[in-house]
Amino acid sequence: MVRYDFASDNTAGAAPEALNALVRANRGFTSGYGTDEVTSRAADLVRALLDADADVRFVASGTAANAVSLAALCRPFEAVLAHEHAHVCTDETGAPGLFGHGLGLIGLPGASGRIDPPALDRALDAPDVSHRQSPAALSLTNATEYGTLYSVAEIGRLTKAAKARGLGVHLDGARLANAAASGFQIKALKDLDIDILVVGGTKAGMPPTEAVVLFDPALARRFDARLKQVGQLPSKGRFLAAPWIGMLESDGWRDRALHANEMARQLAALMPFPVRHPVEANAVFVDMDDDALARLHAKGWFVYRFTDGTVRFMCSWATTQAAVDEIVQAARSAV
Amino acid sequence: MVRYDFASDNTAGAAPEALNALVRANRGFTSGYGTDEVTSRAADLVRALLDADADVRFVASGTAANAVSLAALCRPFEAVLAHEHAHVCTDETGAPGLFGHGLGLIGLPGASGRIDPPALDRALDAPDVSHRQSPAALSLTNATEYGTLYSVAEIGRLTKAAKARGLGVHLDGARLANAAASGFQIKALKDLDIDILVVGGTKAGMPPTEAVVLFDPALARRFDARLKQVGQLPSKGRFLAAPWIGMLESDGWRDRALHANEMARQLAALMPFPVRHPVEANAVFVDMDDDALARLHAKGWFVYRFTDGTVRFMCSWATTQAAVDEIVQAARSAV
Amino acid sequence: MVRYDFASDNTAGAAPEALNALVRANRGFTSGYGTDEVTSRAADLVRALLDADADVRFVASGTAANAVSLAALCRPFEAVLAHEHAHVCTDETGAPGLFGHGLGLIGLPGASGRIDPPALDRALDAPDVSHRQSPAALSLTNATEYGTLYSVAEIGRLTKAAKARGLGVHLDGARLANAAASGFQIKALKDLDIDILVVGGTKAGMPPTEAVVLFDPALARRFDARLKQVGQLPSKGRFLAAPWIGMLESDGWRDRALHANEMARQLAALMPFPVRHPVEANAVFVDMDDDALARLHAKGWFVYRFTDGTVRFMCSWATTQAAVDEIVQAARSAV
Amino acid sequence: MVRYDFASDNTAGAAPEALNALVRANRGFTSGYGTDEVTSRAADLVRALLDADADVRFVASGTAANAVSLAALCRPFEAVLAHEHAHVCTDETGAPGLFGHGLGLIGLPGASGRIDPPALDRALDAPDVSHRQSPAALSLTNATEYGTLYSVAEIGRLTKAAKARGLGVHLDGARLANAAASGFQIKALKDLDIDILVVGGTKAGMPPTEAVVLFDPALARRFDARLKQVGQLPSKGRFLAAPWIGMLESDGWRDRALHANEMARQLAALMPFPVRHPVEANAVFVDMDDDALARLHAKGWFVYRFTDGTVRFMCSWATTQAAVDEIVQAARSAV
Repeated sequence: MVRYDFASDNTAGAAPEALNALVRANRGFTSGYGTDEVTSRAADLVRALLDADADVRFVASGTAANAVSLAALCRPFEAVLAHEHAHVCTDETGAPGLFGHGLGLIGLPGASGRIDPPALDRALDAPDVSHRQSPAALSLTNATEYGTLYSVAEIGRLTKAAKARGLGVHLDGARLANAAASGFQIKALKDLDIDILVVGGTKAGMPPTEAVVLFDPALARRFDARLKQVGQLPSKGRFLAAPWIGMLESDGWRDRALHANEMARQLAALMPFPVRHPVEANAVFVDMDDDALARLHAKGWFVYRFTDGTVRFMCSWATTQAAVDEIVQAARSAV
Repeated sequence: MVRYDFASDNTAGAAPEALNALVRANRGFTSGYGTDEVTSRAADLVRALLDADADVRFVASGTAANAVSLAALCRPFEAVLAHEHAHVCTDETGAPGLFGHGLGLIGLPGASGRIDPPALDRALDAPDVSHRQSPAALSLTNATEYGTLYSVAEIGRLTKAAKARGLGVHLDGARLANAAASGFQIKALKDLDIDILVVGGTKAGMPPTEAVVLFDPALARRFDARLKQVGQLPSKGRFLAAPWIGMLESDGWRDRALHANEMARQLAALMPFPVRHPVEANAVFVDMDDDALARLHAKGWFVYRFTDGTVRFMCSWATTQAAVDEIVQAARSAV
Repeated sequence: MVRYDFASDNTAGAAPEALNALVRANRGFTSGYGTDEVTSRAADLVRALLDADADVRFVASGTAANAVSLAALCRPFEAVLAHEHAHVCTDETGAPGLFGHGLGLIGLPGASGRIDPPALDRALDAPDVSHRQSPAALSLTNATEYGTLYSVAEIGRLTKAAKARGLGVHLDGARLANAAASGFQIKALKDLDIDILVVGGTKAGMPPTEAVVLFDPALARRFDARLKQVGQLPSKGRFLAAPWIGMLESDGWRDRALHANEMARQLAALMPFPVRHPVEANAVFVDMDDDALARLHAKGWFVYRFTDGTVRFMCSWATTQAAVDEIVQAARSAV
Repeated sequence: MVRYDFASDNTAGAAPEALNALVRANRGFTSGYGTDEVTSRAADLVRALLDADADVRFVASGTAANAVSLAALCRPFEAVLAHEHAHVCTDETGAPGLFGHGLGLIGLPGASGRIDPPALDRALDAPDVSHRQSPAALSLTNATEYGTLYSVAEIGRLTKAAKARGLGVHLDGARLANAAASGFQIKALKDLDIDILVVGGTKAGMPPTEAVVLFDPALARRFDARLKQVGQLPSKGRFLAAPWIGMLESDGWRDRALHANEMARQLAALMPFPVRHPVEANAVFVDMDDDALARLHAKGWFVYRFTDGTVRFMCSWATTQAAVDEIVQAARSAV
């Protein structure tokens, strides 16, 4: 497709600096399974990005990254607390349950994708009975599914409550670049009592690759065996690591997200339908009735209704000003 | 590393035609999760390669490809029959058991990685009792772990016996290119009663990608959901599919394997240690004592002892004549 | 405890005819794992009870019986449709997810524990997409968690819709005896397109034992291996089967439930709090505020709040007229 | 069957003191899920038996008891070391793999069912690599599958080696009564660094019930939820606990095993076929060719060939002197 596709931030390919790094890494001979120098260099860059002394692995799938993380934090008779519209709850075909052997997911409410703190407290206060799966982990997402941000303080508020009850904490950072570009202090993450962080590469403009960051060193023991068993320890690991070198050496990881966020901001400003969530990252959600949506589809723009009933428009590193103008025009004629 | 590494056929990067195709595919905007045109084109090429009207999916990991296939053929209280040294038995960290929820693996003997047909018959004749996991699938590998080939007739002999008992059949073709280059008629596979075939891309000279071929159309129902749940349905699916276009349009898939096989043949001919298995693909296995192996390591050649106690040397698309000469010289001085 | 306990219908022991049969079965020597004559006789009686030519197994746990049934009907990337307050959803610690390797549970609404048919239709109409677990089974409960009944026609309405979409059907009959005693035609079950039925023994007045009835003969293949693997194929199977002989030869299975239902009817009629669900089986649910509940607890009656916020009183085969009078008096003084 | 059946030690019913206790416990009303006074009393008696301050649970299945224990000690990408002929390896339909989500089993050799200590050491010395499941637990069996005993010192030798590497230890005591009756000091178990012990009730002469003893208090957290999820937390828990009261208050647990062992001793002494393993508990294994076995079967004695090819004769609490004489006579005429 030549025309930009607002259906998702993964309809675009890879940013040039990511792909060029991949091509550059395709030289010489390396040992396998993440023991190579390309992987080592990329991991160093992720650690520098986060200013954290953590173990880093690169995997090919965000779904797998999240699911393997939750499996590391929960036992099958326990549950994960997450926003009820979090990707792990709504879009991963029950992957946490498979990777975690039946672990439960407890959906929490909260406006615009952010967990309501009192709702978390109530879930943590629920009696620990044997006939239900009691929580063992909290899963957060930043930027959220609704393109909003948690502040450092807000995450700290939630993780502190979870940690006080002995829970592990997972942060799904599929769009952490967009959060960072929007002012979220990612170097503060290391002090927020997070056990496992997944930093998104794919949506940030790379070929399929995500970084799994183990802040808790105890989790690192046999983590490669864990990854190997779930099919996420590739022999030619350099291909998952190299794009990170390209994006982090150049600061493309953040700059590309800054662009995506700016496109979303402009799109929201021009959109002729009511915008329903604060536009703090690269997504715009609007109220649109079925007829209007059908008219937009008829013009070849395949955006769709999201979990909350609004219609979602995603921007990415590859969204152009012209594409924004085009879809705004289409939207206006679809009103 | 500049020097070729004979430790595995995945120490090399990707062949130019594979990587160029990946770069070429990085244009425009595509729908996600394998619904894009790049994936569609690559699947057509795989079908043409096999002359088969089958469903094709591309995944990032051979371990996952095998494990998800076996999970599709077996229930948890059933078992897979495989050669006792098959990759699924020895090198995948129990992935079939995790993907298959505890399914069993029953190792069968056989010279040089090929299952001994009477051993299969005995396993099939074992009483179907409730206190053991009875077989529901047969898993074959071609080329085998020992660089040998099954003929079409030999595979037919084994699959016929399995099918007569109602088993499903999986073929691990991580090195199917090497088999094809060595004369194995891959277009005959469609008539061999195989349910799922995994065609190796990674070891054939691609970035991490494997093709899962569903000969049995009944398996295709909800297979995408199956893949999504195990973290093998990437949003940017084109990056897993594109290398296949490069390798199959150019016939690089077979030609590169032909080269690898030839390098192995030469290596075997020159090797100063006794060669232990027929060299029919890209591997050479030799008898070597610990002292000799240590001397080879000291010279910087990190080959290692395999499951059967021999030392394995792997060639690939990237093995050069010069590399063969170098390691032969090193081997000679290590005798 | 000497005083009757209305907290559950499992606080009572076993009815005399169940225990006497168990004692009688404790003679001689039998083969193991359900192959014995006691088990055979009990299975015949269950078949006669249902007028059905079905496979019957006896297991020690209702949770296991349900979970193993759902695992037999669903694959991990699929889901079970059930009432949102069904026991499998709320009281089994995620057992379906563990036995079913991460299968999903989709809760459906409906008054007083009965699934609302249009809600089922909507769930069946949801698009079959790969990023969610699409339904593969419908799980019903009769009598329901709220002590109400489905009629034969109502079950037929639901199973017909499910079957039209290819789903399997499971019926949790933990309190099927209560339904039968209240007029539900259990001999009609065989014609309702149910694949697996769990007939409750424990709540009907037996020691721990449940009958798993496989109406679909295809499910019977290797079902013993399935049970063995999940720890539900006891070597001394006669002890799970014998109570059924005692309860079915004497018609105690139904008569005891008739008594329990009658006690519930009387309790509801006398209860000084508003009764919230139709009393069609052995349960009474009332509105009661926290102070009143605390006063009842203070008098030593440990009933508790149920999922819907009402307070539940359960009767059983062992509930006496005197116990009903006592708790009614306590309730009156707690108003 | 009127005639004694030597096929297993579970062909007999329950000893009178076990069943009488069960009947006695069938009075009054109790809370559910193991919180009742019968369960509490039985747990006290198990603690007294072992002279240990441990958590005790009662479950309905030895297979489940073992599998849930191993699942508590291992993660899916890890393995259990066990004797290659241990019940968990050969007779539980892969239950550890299902309960443990794909955990591996590594079979170790050793004469007559006892793990060879150097073999354990070698397994512990194997490199901890990511492509194989490395051991996280050691599973022992006493009395062994071959009716032999480990001494306290021998168990200590093995558990010390395992503990030095950080492994957990499980002891399958399905026939611990027979070991105890043969002089094994069960009060010493608490000092042997065992994490979980399963004490057999069924084979000791009870209806289906096994005691799970958690020596490691850390394992007790949410263990009830773990049991509930796997269908091993029965609502009417008293029925699993009561037989223990009968057998432990009376010392029947040990006395009945003493009798079984003595019967085996006599049987071995009179058996006209070569006895193949030391007779230290209630089993006799003999060399017998197929014709002789067929002749024995023809006389109605359904003993069978065991994993090692010998023919097994099991005695139990219910084996009579007359039954021994009968089968010896049959065996003599079958020679």
